Amino acid sequence: MTRPDLPPIEYAGRAAALRERLTAAGIDGLAITDPTSLRWVTGFSGSNGAVAVLPDRIVLVTDNRYRERAAEELAAAGVEAEVLIGVTQPEQRALLVGAFAGCRQVGAEATSLSHARWEQLAGEVPLVAADGHVADLRRTKDAGEIARMELACRCADAALAEVAPTLGDGLTEADVRDELEHRMRRHGADGPSYATIVASGPEHAARPHHETGRRSIVEGDTVVIDVGALVDGYHSDMTRSFVIGTPTAQQQRLYDLLLDVQLAGVAAVSAGTAASDVDAACRERVADAGLIDWYLHSTGHGVGLLIHEDPFESPVSTMTLRAGDVVTVEPGLYRVGFGGFRIEDLVEVTHDGHRILTAFPKDSPCLPSPPTT
Amino acid sequence: MTRPDLPPIEYAGRAAALRERLTAAGIDGLAITDPTSLRWVTGFSGSNGAVAVLPDRIVLVTDNRYRERAAEELAAAGVEAEVLIGVTQPEQRALLVGAFAGCRQVGAEATSLSHARWEQLAGEVPLVAADGHVADLRRTKDAGEIARMELACRCADAALAEVAPTLGDGLTEADVRDELEHRMRRHGADGPSYATIVASGPEHAARPHHETGRRSIVEGDTVVIDVGALVDGYHSDMTRSFVIGTPTAQQQRLYDLLLDVQLAGVAAVSAGTAASDVDAACRERVADAGLIDWYLHSTGHGVGLLIHEDPFESPVSTMTLRAGDVVTVEPGLYRVGFGGFRIEDLVEVTHDGHRILTAFPKDSPCLPSPPTT
Repeated sequence: MTRPDLPPIEYAGRAAALRERLTAAGIDGLAITDPTSLRWVTGFSGSNGAVAVLPDRIVLVTDNRYRERAAEELAAAGVEAEVLIGVTQPEQRALLVGAFAGCRQVGAEATSLSHARWEQLAGEVPLVAADGHVADLRRTKDAGEIARMELACRCADAALAEVAPTLGDGLTEADVRDELEHRMRRHGADGPSYATIVASGPEHAARPHHETGRRSIVEGDTVVIDVGALVDGYHSDMTRSFVIGTPTAQQQRLYDLLLDVQLAGVAAVSAGTAASDVDAACRERVADAGLIDWYLHSTGHGVGLLIHEDPFESPVSTMTLRAGDVVTVEPGLYRVGFGGFRIEDLVEVTHDGHRILTAFPKDSPCLPSPPTT
Repeated sequence: MTRPDLPPIEYAGRAAALRERLTAAGIDGLAITDPTSLRWVTGFSGSNGAVAVLPDRIVLVTDNRYRERAAEELAAAGVEAEVLIGVTQPEQRALLVGAFAGCRQVGAEATSLSHARWEQLAGEVPLVAADGHVADLRRTKDAGEIARMELACRCADAALAEVAPTLGDGLTEADVRDELEHRMRRHGADGPSYATIVASGPEHAARPHHETGRRSIVEGDTVVIDVGALVDGYHSDMTRSFVIGTPTAQQQRLYDLLLDVQLAGVAAVSAGTAASDVDAACRERVADAGLIDWYLHSTGHGVGLLIHEDPFESPVSTMTLRAGDVVTVEPGLYRVGFGGFRIEDLVEVTHDGHRILTAFPKDSPCLPSPPTT
C-alpha cells in the first residue's frame, strides 16, 4: 500500500537542544551508544554505531555494512555529521575516542552502556554519567513523529477490524497473530510494533504477557489481543478484549467495570498531571470494586521510538505528563480460571488534555460483525 | 501448520555445567540478567527477569506479568527454581540481592549488565566480572536445539521457494519481505528470525545491511534476500542472491566467483579449525580475484538463541570451531552501481566436518521456476 505523505521529523534542532543541556551540566562531549538515542539525534537506524556529540560537530562511527545507509539517512534527516568507518570493534572504539580529543568532560549513559564498555571508555576519556538527557528530550514528539504513530494506529485498527470478526471460527492464537501482522503490513506498516499478543481462555488470557501459542480459541473464552504497528521506527500500542459467544454475566460485569476504569484513566491524562495519578485513577476504582488482586501491572507507559519509554504511569512514578508525551492507558483484570481483559489506548498528551490515537471500538466485549465490502 | 514432534532441549544439566565453571573460578553465586542467558539456563523466555545461580538452588526474580508463564516454562524445561515476584524494580533488585546472602563471591556479566546496574549491585554484594561462561556453554547445541534450527531452515527454504519465482513480477522489496515472513509462519515458524532483508538494484543491493524499502524490483537488478525463521527462540539464517532477467556477463562471472568462494568457506568448516581460517578461505579467494574492495564484512557468525553469537568468523577471531557450533558462511560482493551478491548457509560443525542446514538451491542467480502444484 502506498504510504500517505507525512510531515517531516524535525531532526535539525535536536543536537543543539542536547548541547544546551550538556553545557548546563558542564559536559563538552557526549558519547551516544544506545541505538534509539542515536537514531533520535541523527536519523541513522543501523544496528551498530556510536555518536560523539561535540560542541561544533557530530561524529558517527559505524562499520562497513552501513557506509551507504548512514550517508543516506543523515542526508534525509538533514543532519550534518562526519561518518567514520571502523572495520573491527577496536577500530571503531579508537575512532570514537579520537573524536573526543581535547574534551574536558565526556558524558555517557550509564544505564545503557555495559559495565565492560564503560570501563574501557573511562580508561581513555574523562568519562562521567550523563543519563536521561536524550530520553527526556525524546519524550516530546513533534508533528512528524505524531503523524507516524497515528498512521501506525490506523494500520493496527484496520487489521483488527478485519481479523476480530473471525475470532470465533476455530482459529489458534498463532493464526490470529499471523493474520494481524500480515494485514498491518498490507495497510502500510513496516511491521509489528512488538510480538503481537493473542491470549485466550482461562489460563492464557490470565497472563498479561502471554506468549502467543497454538491453542485454539473456543466458545466462552476471554481473548486479549495486544497489537501495534511500526512506521519509520515509531510504534503504536493497543489492546482490545473479547468474549467468544455471548458473555456470561460475570464476563459482562467485569468488562463493563474495566471499561469504566480505563475511561477514568484516559480522562486523567493531561499536561501537568502526575503520571502516578493516571495509575491511581484506575487502581483506586479496581480496589473499590474489591478486585485489586486482579490488577497485576502498572497502568501505562510512554511510547515512541521504543515501545516502552518514559513516562511510566505506575504508583512509584515521579514524572509529570507534558504536552507531546504519547502514553498508553491499559488497565487489565486477570485471574487464572476466569481468563482476563485488558483495554489499552494510545493517547497524546496535549496542553489542554489529551487526544486518543487508537480508534478500534472498545464499548463491548462482543465480536464485531465482518466489515461490509 | 502443525509442528512436528521435536526432541526435547536438555535443560536439566545446564545449571550443573555452569556451577562447575563457577567453582573453578572461585565464584559461589552468579547473577544472570541477560535474557538470552537466562532463557538458556532456565527455559524462561519473558522480557524481564534475573536469575541467581547458587550452589544448591536457582532463584528466578521477575514481575507479576510473568508469574504464570514462568512457572509453566520452568516446568516444561524440567528446571527446579524458586520464583520470586517483585512488583517494582527496586523490589526485584532487593529479592535478587537477598538470594545471594552468604555468598563470598558473586559473578555477573560486565559485557551485558549496564554500568549503572553494575554499580548498584556492587554496592550490595561482593561482585566480580564473570563473563562468557554461559555464552561458551551455549555454543554447543544439543539435538533439540539443532532440530529447532533445522525446522526454522525448512520454513525459510519453503517460503523462499514460493516467493522467489515472483521476483520479476514488479513487486517492491517490502512486498517480497511481507510475503516471505507470512509464508514462513504458514510453514510453522513462530516468526522471522530478524528483519528480512530484500535489497535490490545498483544501490540497495550494494548495502550488506539494507533496510528493506519500497523500491520496485526491475529487470537487470541484482537482488539479495537474507531470510530466516524463528522456532522456539532458535534462529535460522540464509541468504540467496538473484538476477532479474538474463544475467549480464559481469553478473554471471561475479556470481560464479562468489559461489566458489562460499563453497570454499563451507568446506573449511570443521571441528578444530580456527574460525579466522573460515574467513581467510573466503577472503583470500576474493583478494586473488582483485575484488577485496568489494568484500565489506566478515565471513560469518554463530547462531542459536541469538542471531549473532560466538563464534564469529573474522580475521581477528581467536576462537576454534567445535562440534555443536552452528555458524553461518556468508561471503558477499558489493559495489554501488553494480549492486551485490551474498550467499549464506547455516552450517552445523560436526566432529568430522560439517552439515549444511539450509537447503534452498544456490547454484545459479537465475530465478527458479514456480513450484509445481
